Amino acid sequence: MTHGHAPATPRSTLVITAHAGDFVWRAGGAIALAASRGEKVTIACLTYGERGESAKAWREGKKLEEIKAIRRQEAEKAADTLGAEVVFFDAGDYPLLPTPELTDRLVAVYRATRPDAVLTHPLEDPYNGDHPAAARMALDARVLAQAIGYPADGEIIGAPPVFFFEPHQPEMCGFTPEVLLDITDVWETKRKAMECLAAQRHLWDYYTDLAVRRGVQLKRNAGPNLGLPHRTYAEAYMRPYPQVTGELA
Amino acid sequence: MTHGHAPATPRSTLVITAHAGDFVWRAGGAIALAASRGEKVTIACLTYGERGESAKAWREGKKLEEIKAIRRQEAEKAADTLGAEVVFFDAGDYPLLPTPELTDRLVAVYRATRPDAVLTHPLEDPYNGDHPAAARMALDARVLAQAIGYPADGEIIGAPPVFFFEPHQPEMCGFTPEVLLDITDVWETKRKAMECLAAQRHLWDYYTDLAVRRGVQLKRNAGPNLGLPHRTYAEAYMRPYPQVTGELA
Amino acid sequence: MTHGHAPATPRSTLVITAHAGDFVWRAGGAIALAASRGEKVTIACLTYGERGESAKAWREGKKLEEIKAIRRQEAEKAADTLGAEVVFFDAGDYPLLPTPELTDRLVAVYRATRPDAVLTHPLEDPYNGDHPAAARMALDARVLAQAIGYPADGEIIGAPPVFFFEPHQPEMCGFTPEVLLDITDVWETKRKAMECLAAQRHLWDYYTDLAVRRGVQLKRNAGPNLGLPHRTYAEAYMRPYPQVTGELA
Amino acid sequence: MTHGHAPATPRSTLVITAHAGDFVWRAGGAIALAASRGEKVTIACLTYGERGESAKAWREGKKLEEIKAIRRQEAEKAADTLGAEVVFFDAGDYPLLPTPELTDRLVAVYRATRPDAVLTHPLEDPYNGDHPAAARMALDARVLAQAIGYPADGEIIGAPPVFFFEPHQPEMCGFTPEVLLDITDVWETKRKAMECLAAQRHLWDYYTDLAVRRGVQLKRNAGPNLGLPHRTYAEAYMRPYPQVTGELA
Amino acid sequence: MTHGHAPATPRSTLVITAHAGDFVWRAGGAIALAASRGEKVTIACLTYGERGESAKAWREGKKLEEIKAIRRQEAEKAADTLGAEVVFFDAGDYPLLPTPELTDRLVAVYRATRPDAVLTHPLEDPYNGDHPAAARMALDARVLAQAIGYPADGEIIGAPPVFFFEPHQPEMCGFTPEVLLDITDVWETKRKAMECLAAQRHLWDYYTDLAVRRGVQLKRNAGPNLGLPHRTYAEAYMRPYPQVTGELA
Amino acid sequence: MTHGHAPATPRSTLVITAHAGDFVWRAGGAIALAASRGEKVTIACLTYGERGESAKAWREGKKLEEIKAIRRQEAEKAADTLGAEVVFFDAGDYPLLPTPELTDRLVAVYRATRPDAVLTHPLEDPYNGDHPAAARMALDARVLAQAIGYPADGEIIGAPPVFFFEPHQPEMCGFTPEVLLDITDVWETKRKAMECLAAQRHLWDYYTDLAVRRGVQLKRNAGPNLGLPHRTYAEAYMRPYPQVTGELA
Repeated sequence: MTHGHAPATPRSTLVITAHAGDFVWRAGGAIALAASRGEKVTIACLTYGERGESAKAWREGKKLEEIKAIRRQEAEKAADTLGAEVVFFDAGDYPLLPTPELTDRLVAVYRATRPDAVLTHPLEDPYNGDHPAAARMALDARVLAQAIGYPADGEIIGAPPVFFFEPHQPEMCGFTPEVLLDITDVWETKRKAMECLAAQRHLWDYYTDLAVRRGVQLKRNAGPNLGLPHRTYAEAYMRPYPQVTGELA
Repeated sequence: MTHGHAPATPRSTLVITAHAGDFVWRAGGAIALAASRGEKVTIACLTYGERGESAKAWREGKKLEEIKAIRRQEAEKAADTLGAEVVFFDAGDYPLLPTPELTDRLVAVYRATRPDAVLTHPLEDPYNGDHPAAARMALDARVLAQAIGYPADGEIIGAPPVFFFEPHQPEMCGFTPEVLLDITDVWETKRKAMECLAAQRHLWDYYTDLAVRRGVQLKRNAGPNLGLPHRTYAEAYMRPYPQVTGELA
Repeated sequence: MTHGHAPATPRSTLVITAHAGDFVWRAGGAIALAASRGEKVTIACLTYGERGESAKAWREGKKLEEIKAIRRQEAEKAADTLGAEVVFFDAGDYPLLPTPELTDRLVAVYRATRPDAVLTHPLEDPYNGDHPAAARMALDARVLAQAIGYPADGEIIGAPPVFFFEPHQPEMCGFTPEVLLDITDVWETKRKAMECLAAQRHLWDYYTDLAVRRGVQLKRNAGPNLGLPHRTYAEAYMRPYPQVTGELA
Repeated sequence: MTHGHAPATPRSTLVITAHAGDFVWRAGGAIALAASRGEKVTIACLTYGERGESAKAWREGKKLEEIKAIRRQEAEKAADTLGAEVVFFDAGDYPLLPTPELTDRLVAVYRATRPDAVLTHPLEDPYNGDHPAAARMALDARVLAQAIGYPADGEIIGAPPVFFFEPHQPEMCGFTPEVLLDITDVWETKRKAMECLAAQRHLWDYYTDLAVRRGVQLKRNAGPNLGLPHRTYAEAYMRPYPQVTGELA
Repeated sequence: MTHGHAPATPRSTLVITAHAGDFVWRAGGAIALAASRGEKVTIACLTYGERGESAKAWREGKKLEEIKAIRRQEAEKAADTLGAEVVFFDAGDYPLLPTPELTDRLVAVYRATRPDAVLTHPLEDPYNGDHPAAARMALDARVLAQAIGYPADGEIIGAPPVFFFEPHQPEMCGFTPEVLLDITDVWETKRKAMECLAAQRHLWDYYTDLAVRRGVQLKRNAGPNLGLPHRTYAEAYMRPYPQVTGELA
Repeated sequence: MTHGHAPATPRSTLVITAHAGDFVWRAGGAIALAASRGEKVTIACLTYGERGESAKAWREGKKLEEIKAIRRQEAEKAADTLGAEVVFFDAGDYPLLPTPELTDRLVAVYRATRPDAVLTHPLEDPYNGDHPAAARMALDARVLAQAIGYPADGEIIGAPPVFFFEPHQPEMCGFTPEVLLDITDVWETKRKAMECLAAQRHLWDYYTDLAVRRGVQLKRNAGPNLGLPHRTYAEAYMRPYPQVTGELA
C-alpha cells in the first residue's frame, strides 16, 4: 500500500509564495530535488515583491513596472535553473491583501496541478505581513479545492501534505524544524538558482551558511548516518498536518 | 543515499514502556508492522504495572508476586503474538522512580539493540506519573548511549528517531498526532495481542474504536488516498525530534 | 447569591454554528439536556453547509437549491427532536466570509434571546475555515451586544459564559476538554437527532463512539463518582472565559 | 445524578501548601466559604516557611526553632479563624525537597480526608521552587491514593477535582484565572485571618487589592450579574483537570 | 556605539491606541517619563471610544456627537497633562474595522514622527476586539513605513522597538510583563492625567492599585535595588521584537 | 535613580555552565564586553565536559583524567583571553546530576560574587540533559541566595537579572532571541577565545557564522541603526524574568 500519492502519474509539487525570490532561498533544494526525480513542480508567485523586497532597485531610482519586469525575469531564470515552472499572479505586494478572488484563483491552480505536496510560508511573520497572507490563502484554497460543492473547474483533489518552508528569522515566526530535507545532491543547482537573483547578492552566502547549519542538524538527528557526506546541506520545514505513513522512520 | 538506517542489517525497533500492557494498546500496530517486515523489535518494560494497572487483580485479593507473574505472562504472550521480544526491568511501579541505575541499564539496551527507531511515552501525563518517568529515562539513555565517553559496554549508537505513542487521555497530555501510521494490514494481529490481556477486557473495544477513529483521520490527511481500504486502522505518534528525509511526502 | 443567570425567567442557551449539522454532532447532548429542563435553546445556523458538507448530494447530481432545502429540512427535524428552535442565516458556505453585516445580525439574536450560555466552534480548525469564521463572529457579536452604545434593537445583555464544542479532529484544533458534560440521561434523544441527518450516516457510529470515550474520561475525572451508570455518555467543551462560581466543585 | 461528590457525608476540602502563610493569602476565601457551609477543610502545610518566608524574623535575630514556633502559632490562629484544621509536616523549606516519603505521607492524608476538592500551588513558580515542589507531590499523591495496589492505610479515593490557587506573581507562573470564586460573603473572615499573620503586615492591603481586582473581573465575566453587590471580592483558580458537570453554566 | 536611536534629534515616541482613554491608563507613566526628559510623544488615537467605552454617557442619554466631543476634550486635557500631542483618526469604534486606508494613514504618521519607540495594545483581547484591530494596523504600518517601495510621503524609517502596554485583564490576553518601567518619578503626573477622565472615575483607584502592584514586582526583579523608594510605581510592557542592546542589564 | 546595579563597586557578572566549552561559544562576547568595561566576570563551570563533549579525545584513546586536564587547560586559556576567572566544580558530566550539595555550592558563589547579571543555559535541551540540569541549579541557587534564612556564608543578594544564552540547536530548545547583544567591538577577542578550544576546531566557523547571522538580525531590529558597522556580530539571549528599566528603548 502506498501513502500520499498515486503511483501512475509523476508526482506534482505546488509551491505558493508571496514574492518572487521566496521559492529560491527557502525551497530551492526541495524543488531541485523533485525536478531531478522527473517530478513536476509549479510555483504560484502571488507578487513580484516589487515594493517590499526590491530596496536596491528603488534606491537606484527604478520605476515600478521596471522593477516588476526585473524581478520576473530573475525569478523565471531561477525557476528554470531549478527545473520548475513559475506562474505570476501580480497581486500587488506590501501589503498583499487576501481576497476571495485570489483564493479562488489558487483553487484553480490546485485542481489543475493536483499536487502531492504543497510548500508555502508559515502562518506567522512579524517582519513581513505578506508571507502569512500568502500562506493563509494557500491553506484556504487547499481546503476548498477538496470540496465537490466548490464551483471551480477541474476535479476535486485529495488532501496533499503541506510543508512550511523556513522564514528569514525563524525563531520570531514560531518556526521549529520538523523536517530536515537532505539537499546535498542538488546543492550546486540551488546555489546557481540563488545567483540568478542578482539584486540580493548579500543573501547568497547567508543562505549557503544556513544550508550548512541545517545540514549539521540533519546529521545530529540522523540515526547511524552512514553514507552521509562530510558536508551535508539541508533545508528545514514544518508540517501543519500530520504525516501519513506506513513505517516509523 | 538512505536516511535513518543502514541497509545491511535488519532494522531494529526499541520500545520503552512503564507498564506491562502499554506496548500493546499504544504501539501494537507499529510493532506488528515492523515484525511483519522481518525487522527486530525489543520491548523494554520497566515494571509489570503491578500496583497501578492491576486494579482487578487486587480487588480479587491476589498478592503482589502473583499479580506480577500474571502480568508478565500476559505481556509475554502479547509480545509473542506481535512478533517481538520483551525484557522486564521489574523496577517497581506506582511510583516508578527514575534513577541513574535504571537509566544506565537502558543505555546498555540501546547499545545492544542499536535501534533505528525508538517508541516510548510522551513526557507529560497528569493521570499517571510513571509514564513520564519512563519516557524521561528513555530519552536520557538515548543521549548517553551516543557518547563515546559514557562508560558502558557496546559501541556507541547514532541518533535514532523517537516516536511518542498515544496516551489514554491524549488531550490532557499535550498529545497531538504528528504521525498517523497505517496499521490496517496488521490489525487482526494487534486485536489478538490485545485479547491476551484478559484482565483489561474493557479496553479491547475502546482501543479498537480508537484505531478506527485514527484511521478516519489518516484518510482525511492522505492525499488522493487511492488504494486505501474502506476501513482503515491507524495509530498516532508524536516526534520530539525533526524527521530526517530525502523527500517531502 | 446566584451566579450566571437570574432566577426569574427560564434559562436561555444560544448555539451559533457554521453549518446545518454541527449542532447535532457537537452539542446535541447539551441542547437536549437544557430542553429537558424546560429551558429555551436557539440555534443560529449561518449556512446550510451546502457546499462543504454535502459531498454525497453533489455526487448524486443534486442542485444547490435542492441541497440547501434538504439540509434545512434535516436540521429542522433534528432541532425539533432535541427540543430547540433553529434559525438559518443562509450566508453561503465554503467559504463562509465574516462581514460586519452578519455580525450585526448576530448582535440582534443575542439581544433577542438574552442567553445564559453560548455554544459555538473553537477559533482554530485547519480542516474547515468556516468554523473559525463563525466562532469569530459569534464572539465579536457577544461583546458588541453588551455595549449600550452599539446601535441595535433590544436591551444590552450581560456577559454570558461561552463554551466551545468539540471539532471533528480535536487535537488539530488546539481542543482540550475543559468541561465534560454528562449527557447520559438524554443520550437516546441525541442519537435520534443524529439519525435525522440521513446524508451523513457514516457519522452516527463515529459520534456514538466519541460520546462513549468522553464518558470514560468523565468517570476518570469525577471524584467518587457514585451513582454514575456503567455506560456514561459525555460531550467535551472548552471555556474561553473564566468560570464564575460560588463553590469549587 | 450528582457530580463531584456524594450527598451523604459533608464535603471535604484538602489544601496542600508549601509554607505556613500560603493558605491564607491564596485560598482563605475558598476555605472560609466551605467552612461556612459546614464542610470540613484540612490544610496540609509541608513547612513553616521558616527560612524562605520569614525575612523579618531573621532580621530581628530570631532563631530557627523560635521562628518555626511563631509561624506555627500564626497559621493555627488563621486556620482557626477560617474554620479549618491545619496539619504541619515540618519538612524543611528553602529548599523543600520532594521525596517518596513525603508523597507517601500525603497519600495517607488523602485517604484519611477523602477530599471532594483539592487546592494547591500551580506547577510553575520561578520565584520560589518550594511551591512547585509541594504541588508536584500533591498531584502525585492524589494519583497514588486512587490505586488499590498502592500500599497505604485507608480506602482508595475517587479523582477529586484540583484547583491551583493564585501565586504572588501570577503572570510569571503561567497562571490564568480559569475559575473566579465569589468570596464576598466571607470577605471579613478572610481579612481577619490575614491579620493573624502579623509578620507580613505589608501583604494585608496587597491581597485586599487583589481580591477587589479579581472581583471586578468576576463581574465582567458574570452573565447578567443581577444580585452582585457593588463591591465584589474574588479569588482566582486554575483547573489542571477538566470540570465534570451536568449543566453548562 | 549607541543602540535604538540616533543621538542628534530628541527621541520620539509614538503611541497608537484604539480609544481615547487607553493611553492614560496603560501608558501614562511612560509618556510622562519621556516628556519629562524633553522627548517628543505623539498619540495616534484611532477612535474616541464613543460606543464601547462611554457607557455612562449613553446611560445619561447623550448623543453620539456629544459623546465624541466629551471624550476628545478629556483626552486632550490628559495628553496635555502628560506632555504629549494627541491626533484623532475618528475611525469609528465597536467595532473598529481594520482597513488599508487606516493603515496607510498610520504609515504617514510613522514617517512624520520617526519614532524611537512605539507603544500599542497587545494582539489579543477577548474582551474588546478594537484593541487587537488597532495593534494589528500599528504593526503592519510600522513594517510598511520601513519599505522604500511603499508609496507614502516622507523618508523611510528604521525598525523602532515596539512595546505592548498592559490590557485591562492581562491574563486573558496572554499578557506577561516582560518590561517593568519605573514611573515613580512621574506618578503624580499620571494620577493627574487619570483624573482628567471624569467619566471613568471608578478606574482611578483601580489603576493606582495596579501601579503599586507592578511596583512591588519591579522591586522583586531589581537586582540590589539600592535607591528604590519605599513605594515604587511601575507599568508593565511586552516586547514583540527582541531588545537590541550593548549591555546585558 | 539607577536600575539593576549599584554605582559604587564595579559590576559583576556570573556565568554558570555545564561544560568547559559552553561559556566560549555561547557567551564569549558578553564576557569580553563586560571585561572590556573593567567589570568582573566569574565563570562557574560545573564539569569539564569530559564524557559528553570530548569525543575526539576519547577516539584518540585518551584517559578520563587526561581529558579533564586538557579541557581544564583549554577553558582556562579561553577565560583568560576573554578577561574572566573560571571556577571548576568537577561534578561529573553525562549525566550531570543535580544535588542539593551542588546547589548549595552555587549559593556560596552567588553570595561571594554578588552578580549584577547571571548567564546560564536555557531550561530545555533535548540533545543534552546536562544543560538544563545546570540551569535548574543556577536558578534555584539564585533564589536561595536571596533568603536571609538560608544558611550560607556571605550576605544575601538582590535579584539579579538572568540571561539564557543560545544553545546549539536553538529551535529545539524553545529558544527565541529576546535580547540581541552587539559584540562587534570584541569580536576578535571572542574568536581568539574560540581558537583556544583546539579539540572543537569544527565549531570555530560554525559559531562565527552564527554571530554574523545574529548580527544581521540585530540590524533588522535596531531602530535607525545609525553608526552600525557593515558587519555586525551579535549574541542572542532570553530573559526568564522581566527587564527592569527606567526607559523604554
